[in-house]
Amino acid sequence: MSNVFVLGHKNPDTDSICSAISYAYLKNEIGMTAEPVRLGELNNETLFVLEKFGFERPRLVERVSDEVSQVILVDHNERQQSADDIDDVQVIEVIDHHRIANFETTDPLYFRAEPVGCTTTILLKLFKENGVKIPSDIAGLMLSAIISDSLLFKSPTCTAQDVQAAGELAEIAKVDAEVYGLEMLKAGADLSNKTLEDLISLDSKEFEAGNHRFEVAQVNAIDVEEVIDRQQELEVLLEQVVAKKNLDLFVFAVTDILNNNSTAIVLGERADIIEGAFKSSVINNRVLLPGVVSRKKQIVPVITEALS
Amino acid sequence: MSNVFVLGHKNPDTDSICSAISYAYLKNEIGMTAEPVRLGELNNETLFVLEKFGFERPRLVERVSDEVSQVILVDHNERQQSADDIDDVQVIEVIDHHRIANFETTDPLYFRAEPVGCTTTILLKLFKENGVKIPSDIAGLMLSAIISDSLLFKSPTCTAQDVQAAGELAEIAKVDAEVYGLEMLKAGADLSNKTLEDLISLDSKEFEAGNHRFEVAQVNAIDVEEVIDRQQELEVLLEQVVAKKNLDLFVFAVTDILNNNSTAIVLGERADIIEGAFKSSVINNRVLLPGVVSRKKQIVPVITEALS
Repeated sequence: MSNVFVLGHKNPDTDSICSAISYAYLKNEIGMTAEPVRLGELNNETLFVLEKFGFERPRLVERVSDEVSQVILVDHNERQQSADDIDDVQVIEVIDHHRIANFETTDPLYFRAEPVGCTTTILLKLFKENGVKIPSDIAGLMLSAIISDSLLFKSPTCTAQDVQAAGELAEIAKVDAEVYGLEMLKAGADLSNKTLEDLISLDSKEFEAGNHRFEVAQVNAIDVEEVIDRQQELEVLLEQVVAKKNLDLFVFAVTDILNNNSTAIVLGERADIIEGAFKSSVINNRVLLPGVVSRKKQIVPVITEALS
Repeated sequence: MSNVFVLGHKNPDTDSICSAISYAYLKNEIGMTAEPVRLGELNNETLFVLEKFGFERPRLVERVSDEVSQVILVDHNERQQSADDIDDVQVIEVIDHHRIANFETTDPLYFRAEPVGCTTTILLKLFKENGVKIPSDIAGLMLSAIISDSLLFKSPTCTAQDVQAAGELAEIAKVDAEVYGLEMLKAGADLSNKTLEDLISLDSKEFEAGNHRFEVAQVNAIDVEEVIDRQQELEVLLEQVVAKKNLDLFVFAVTDILNNNSTAIVLGERADIIEGAFKSSVINNRVLLPGVVSRKKQIVPVITEALS
């Protein structure tokens, strides 16, 4: 029976899952009884990574407070991205690399956020600070998270620290980061077994700005047109989400991982801000965003400012 | 001209001032142009510390956004405890040991909070992580902050990490922590140049619990009776604050730093909860609280629970 759950955000991505497993490993090594759990279904990329390095999927948990009273958050801090019952447990630690918002505690805690490209870049420091050796399979997970979040070091979120950390981890994991990385990204961009509902929800996050609420979903693809060609069907689904969640704006971005551009479908009452905010023409609810690959750095701050 | 201000909270205490100076020193050593500033008048303890280790007072700044666009917060994160115009600048880093609340950014930042007794205990780690040697005078400031926040290691907020850090810093500063610490606390407890209005406001914080609002002021003293003997005059002033701020309860605690007890004057409509909450008799609006020295850990949670 675990005392503490380690969890990444809803709609988990490779960083959220690999960080939860890696940090739970570290905590167990230094005396805590911690279990990595997940809040949702895994994407193809993450499944590829877990299989490659021989890990089981973390257990899917709906309500964390049914089982534990304390949790550690990795790769997120905003309440609405966490477990639905997050207010019923005590958050004792946060390890993250995102902006801080909608987060509040009654007691002091260990909160470590750094403006780097990936949570596992911070975890590598924590392994060192705690004097814990990283096994090669855990190093493989941590490397995968950096490759995923940085789109193989091409995202503007990628820092020198991430590149350096990836180098160290690749050595421990005994893989060639470039060769393995491309293979991994391609596995993630394989959308053949995904429904359109999957595409708009698998890697989607909700945000608040001023009095507005918006959501940004992102999908990596090799062939962007293959996805965007189904715009009409997508719009029907997106409109449903907008209505159900009472959103002011939904941005569905399809990112071309080979050419590092994104094409987005934008819907909602405040979709009018997109053209000015990104200085790109919106035609038929569609906009091309040249050089844009990072939701965190290139999409969310731009929308937040425009809506505030 | 500095690019970045490093600032502690309003009504600055020794940790806020010493952390600002020490962290600005560290940031300058690694290439930033940072200046420590203060948001208010210094108390006797902090003045004693600055003189002892040969530092000028940081510059008093009313509006940070008139001079810089980026700031680093130390020893606090809650907006209402920071510069009035904090929303007009970018917070690029936070180093703190309090609960997290009322804090939000649009971009990722370096946020390092740890559940230890003092901010400089965390700063010591940052000096090491950045490979920067701590000069003996800076070590003196950092040690002073730990002694101040922990009441010479006797407060329940003090952790093993704080004691360990103080030991290292005392060695670098070449002072005997116990001897110097008592001297410093005594200087802080010198109330001879303070008016009664000063005493009830210098280190006073407001809180909410349920639908109730209460305020807790704390003063360190060597001779508690000297302060409490003026109870009649104090009560007149306290009643004015209670009426003006519409408080349900005001606790004015005078902490005996030699014997580690507090004596409190309690006023307000909900002063009736004190006897039950602290299991001590209230006689003539006065209560003795044996072993109580920490507002954060021993007073506020007890009142919060009783009022909720």
